Amino acid sequence: MSFGDKQYQAIRMHGIGDVLREHRRSRPNMLAVVDGNTRLSWPELDLRVNRLSNLLLSAGLTEGSRILWLGQNSFRLFEALLAAAKIGAMVCPVNWRMSSDEIAAVIDDFTPHITLWQNTDIGEALLEAKNKASYQGRWIQHDGDDENSYEALLQAAAETDPDIAIHADAPLVAMYTAAFDGKPNAALLSQSALLYQSLMIAYGYSISDQSANLNSGPLFHLGTMLATWATFSFGGKNLFVARVNAEEMLQLIERERVSHAFVAQPTVEQMREINKDGKYDVSSIWSDPSAPEWSSPLVMPASSPFGQQPRVYGQTEIMGFATFGFLGGDGAGRVSPLAQVRIIDDEGRDKAPGETGEIAVRGVQVMSGYYNRDEENQRRGASGWHRTRDLGKRLEDGSVAFVGPKTTMIKSGVENIYPAEIEACIRQHPAIQDVCVIGVPDPKWQQNVKAIVVFKAGNSASADELIEHCRSRMASYKKPKVVDVVDSLPRKPDGQLDRDSADQLFGGGGYPRT
Amino acid sequence: MSFGDKQYQAIRMHGIGDVLREHRRSRPNMLAVVDGNTRLSWPELDLRVNRLSNLLLSAGLTEGSRILWLGQNSFRLFEALLAAAKIGAMVCPVNWRMSSDEIAAVIDDFTPHITLWQNTDIGEALLEAKNKASYQGRWIQHDGDDENSYEALLQAAAETDPDIAIHADAPLVAMYTAAFDGKPNAALLSQSALLYQSLMIAYGYSISDQSANLNSGPLFHLGTMLATWATFSFGGKNLFVARVNAEEMLQLIERERVSHAFVAQPTVEQMREINKDGKYDVSSIWSDPSAPEWSSPLVMPASSPFGQQPRVYGQTEIMGFATFGFLGGDGAGRVSPLAQVRIIDDEGRDKAPGETGEIAVRGVQVMSGYYNRDEENQRRGASGWHRTRDLGKRLEDGSVAFVGPKTTMIKSGVENIYPAEIEACIRQHPAIQDVCVIGVPDPKWQQNVKAIVVFKAGNSASADELIEHCRSRMASYKKPKVVDVVDSLPRKPDGQLDRDSADQLFGGGGYPRT
Repeated sequence: MSFGDKQYQAIRMHGIGDVLREHRRSRPNMLAVVDGNTRLSWPELDLRVNRLSNLLLSAGLTEGSRILWLGQNSFRLFEALLAAAKIGAMVCPVNWRMSSDEIAAVIDDFTPHITLWQNTDIGEALLEAKNKASYQGRWIQHDGDDENSYEALLQAAAETDPDIAIHADAPLVAMYTAAFDGKPNAALLSQSALLYQSLMIAYGYSISDQSANLNSGPLFHLGTMLATWATFSFGGKNLFVARVNAEEMLQLIERERVSHAFVAQPTVEQMREINKDGKYDVSSIWSDPSAPEWSSPLVMPASSPFGQQPRVYGQTEIMGFATFGFLGGDGAGRVSPLAQVRIIDDEGRDKAPGETGEIAVRGVQVMSGYYNRDEENQRRGASGWHRTRDLGKRLEDGSVAFVGPKTTMIKSGVENIYPAEIEACIRQHPAIQDVCVIGVPDPKWQQNVKAIVVFKAGNSASADELIEHCRSRMASYKKPKVVDVVDSLPRKPDGQLDRDSADQLFGGGGYPRT
Repeated sequence: MSFGDKQYQAIRMHGIGDVLREHRRSRPNMLAVVDGNTRLSWPELDLRVNRLSNLLLSAGLTEGSRILWLGQNSFRLFEALLAAAKIGAMVCPVNWRMSSDEIAAVIDDFTPHITLWQNTDIGEALLEAKNKASYQGRWIQHDGDDENSYEALLQAAAETDPDIAIHADAPLVAMYTAAFDGKPNAALLSQSALLYQSLMIAYGYSISDQSANLNSGPLFHLGTMLATWATFSFGGKNLFVARVNAEEMLQLIERERVSHAFVAQPTVEQMREINKDGKYDVSSIWSDPSAPEWSSPLVMPASSPFGQQPRVYGQTEIMGFATFGFLGGDGAGRVSPLAQVRIIDDEGRDKAPGETGEIAVRGVQVMSGYYNRDEENQRRGASGWHRTRDLGKRLEDGSVAFVGPKTTMIKSGVENIYPAEIEACIRQHPAIQDVCVIGVPDPKWQQNVKAIVVFKAGNSASADELIEHCRSRMASYKKPKVVDVVDSLPRKPDGQLDRDSADQLFGGGGYPRT
């Protein structure tokens, strides 16, 4: 009986549906959800979730069944997630800004038993996608008002709790990401990964049942969802807005005493402009509304102006973050008690501290695999660790530093060379303002390393000096063979290097398929 | 594939041994353990744990094997727990103050493969117990210095990590408790229960890797161990003292900047007396050393003077606490996101809010069952929920209030009557200072209810008035038939009612076996 009494094994099962059940008992008078005019207490939310669970069961869904959400942010997406939790199904919230071709590809890949779709604003593109897809399944309009709409079907369903025993390791969220070869893969995140990561997020960002979390970032990004689940787990209030509107968000912050939010930089600037006379009371989230930098207790995107630069390392496949600055250390902070991290080479051997290698992760927060991607799962997980395809290193204090994506790889002879690593080295040279490293085709070696550099004003260095700078700091085969000097490098709107443009401009090509 | 990719299921396994492995990587220069002159960094601790793991493996221990700790507090108990975690075994720390007969009974019940025992102070009584026990197993002296001692065997063992995949649901701690019929039962607590409860304790009591936790309470009580595991999980420093010594503890607080501790009231008073001139700097744990009430961030025993009255409900069988005052609500606070709580009657039906019933718990923190107690496990877990044998109720705000133990039960006709519930009712009468309810034998009804009351100075009430007070507030069969008035009630040293003495003094008896 190495796991103890069999009956007690069942008693120990605890998933997202169970957390909701307890909130209904523990918080009979507290608000769970606000979305426009919809305000649901925990018992009201649980009743609606029961109705939806029964609707899904009667539609034939069962453990492992799939639901696609084709809509903007809505409390109904949250209901769908909670109902899926109660029956062991999973929900994939899709980026509704994608083209109809892309959405059709997702439909055919995920083959959802039920698709919950939205007509307002985006209905036309979605129906176009539906026509393009080979697979259909059942479509239910979440914002309709006829007898086949979400609300009508919900009201017709029983309100009793389905009360099915669901293993907490059942995947609940499917999130498309990791389009390494142009085709995205759906990472499956389990109920236990969601719940335990919520405890870490609540610990680090002071989330409690007094929190009011504004879901203003897109819920098809895990960054937004981390705070949603943490607020849910601790019995706080989740507010939903369909899409970003600075004035509406300011009104909500004042009215609902919002304490946590996910807001991108341009929206913050709009909000500051609208509120420059202090028209709205934003003190629940920004203690000093007139401060030059608004800062929030929840810090998410790297470009976020809230608080300090967020020091975290993570990706969707590991349920967000595996390291946190609030756990101490430099770099991206130290590793969470929920995870293990190793820095490994291609053969799975440990790199020494200070050396760059691939970040590999183990632990309860790691995904349950990509949906229907046996080969990719095998490639990524064969070592017994999840290979992130990100490069990092251990600093002296034991914390983890992110170096860059591994996915752009140069092949020179038998060696794998990662531009991010070489760029990090060149950036240490005092004359360097900016740098991009590319691979250029070579008949003998497959590729050679080329560095394109921008000097700081009034600075310069010879190609030989820069090459020697690299040679003395890393394995010789990694050093650039050629150095080009330019005034500026191509960058994407989000500030990331535009490597495709750099290849076109400076002769890159011949990359291996990773 | 309802749990996702099989390979990824293995990647998601994460237990206490894995947390230690990551600390070795993440905190190469930080202290894990201090015990007398022993100071171990995380890598040093992990190396010793590896040696002990290999020693245990070579002694034939495997998943589910049992280790008994017969010693006072020591870093070696902590090492034993961590080594057991790495090989899937479990460790039972026994109350060394028990009689040799009691310890012999534990040995024969737990039948440990290995017993780690201590000679200093308590060796004689332990060897007496060893002689009295029918079962033997292998005994290793943890504080010896010959070639068969713990340290000698450890140094001879390999230092490589055994690297065995251990399911996090494997029980790790066995804790004797719940001596309902005079015979204690060993509650088995899993690695995942320990880890996830640690996240809640760290959240509520601000534990981080900057914490220094003084293990001054006995480690055979879960109350002490909660902070040990939370400090461990977040990479903080655990300090061990063999037993309580006020002066030594003050020295440690100053030297090690202790932030958390488990200290009983009499010891606090000794410490205040010794430190009345501020000889020791205790500011790391008590911000104002001259304050009339020292308060600590960690509040454990009900009699603790630290901070507010701790508002929690729990028991060893549910890994400590299922409700916390810091989660809001009155009473014992609201239920943790790791648990569900119901208030049920003997048939397992829900009691209405406000009504008293048995507290039943489900969730990942619940024990894996009592060791080798199939019948008791069946009795307690048959409803699919763990019956705590404690009485409680839901308050209007959804929080849980503890009413009293259910284990003292009076049987009147077919009715089960719980003294704690009736005492709570009588205590609401304005004239009452103290009360004890007992069952007295009755030839027809098996037992009758008798109340023994102490009036507040200058107050009184008739027996009829008190009986009517009960009758109007609860089912009539629960009301006392007889009321005795006394000056004081027998109490145990810890302040609890001494029900055995009350039965002897006031004619109690004839209780049903529960």
